[in-house]
Amino acid sequence: MPAELWRPSLDLALHRNRSRPEMRLVQLATVRPDGRPAIRTVVFRGFLDDPRKLAFATDSRSAKRAEIEANPRGEICWYFPETREQFRVSGMLALIGPGSTDPALRQARADLWAELGDEVRAGFTWPAPREPRDAASRFSDVPPAPSSPVENFLLLTLTATEVDHLELQGDPQHRWIYEADPRGRWSGREVNP
Amino acid sequence: MPAELWRPSLDLALHRNRSRPEMRLVQLATVRPDGRPAIRTVVFRGFLDDPRKLAFATDSRSAKRAEIEANPRGEICWYFPETREQFRVSGMLALIGPGSTDPALRQARADLWAELGDEVRAGFTWPAPREPRDAASRFSDVPPAPSSPVENFLLLTLTATEVDHLELQGDPQHRWIYEADPRGRWSGREVNP
Repeated sequence: MPAELWRPSLDLALHRNRSRPEMRLVQLATVRPDGRPAIRTVVFRGFLDDPRKLAFATDSRSAKRAEIEANPRGEICWYFPETREQFRVSGMLALIGPGSTDPALRQARADLWAELGDEVRAGFTWPAPREPRDAASRFSDVPPAPSSPVENFLLLTLTATEVDHLELQGDPQHRWIYEADPRGRWSGREVNP
Repeated sequence: MPAELWRPSLDLALHRNRSRPEMRLVQLATVRPDGRPAIRTVVFRGFLDDPRKLAFATDSRSAKRAEIEANPRGEICWYFPETREQFRVSGMLALIGPGSTDPALRQARADLWAELGDEVRAGFTWPAPREPRDAASRFSDVPPAPSSPVENFLLLTLTATEVDHLELQGDPQHRWIYEADPRGRWSGREVNP
């Protein structure tokens, strides 16, 4: 049994729903500096070597960067229509940019950049998101080189501390809560759905 | 043109994606009393007569009730895979229970209760969500009468104040922000994706 008791269930759900490309899309919630919640769709880029760390790509010019710098708590939610399951994963967010002092994370950032599609890499050269659209704005479809991440490309990680797994298919339904203690040891319990 | 400039785009997206039953599912973000974000899947139950108000059903025993009482700001996110569009709708959440003093909202609550499926109505008689599951817990599949909502059934409304519409299909992509001023007048602008 792995230390992360929730990983087998999530890995199985990802496998059983793999025919749907949108299964790589999850919703990420953060808190804005003014105390309002924010939520948007992000692409899940897999787990890092640390089995608690989920990886995403983001742009240093995006609103979520400022939100995460002010409040690093985050929660993602996956809903799998094929198997009628929901996973909520909450934990700590971290942004890894060109100045990161952790060699493993710097490497993970470079690896993710190299794996991105050309279209996604080209987006990082576009004018700043949410700024007024200007007729003169250039949206190039020429991607920067896969070998060297642009400055504004960030690896975003979510280190899980709590997972809530709801299975709607049972009769009655099933729901489990998994929590990490401060030393990182996981425990799980079944709760009412 | 309706006063709610964003409604035609959202109504069209709902229509164009209507073949997928999961299109009624959206993710709702709130803020927990301890300042962490929370996110879960909810079923969109349509608009109320007020075209800014989206309706959902919830249970007064759920965690989101306490979260919303402490901080009524909410944001939902829809992702439509067929048309590759995202809508983020943020605004004020309100909980309408049996003690509501607004006759129209009390009626909307009764109407929604009557429209729910038997399986959903039965769930409101189940033991409290997130409490430890007990072997003796009874999960009845006998639904309460559609004519009289149970005490713990709440109509949850989101009154939109800002909408962020992202269209991934264009080349380049398109993104619009719609905002209501304090008097409820909407304005929209195109921004960089």
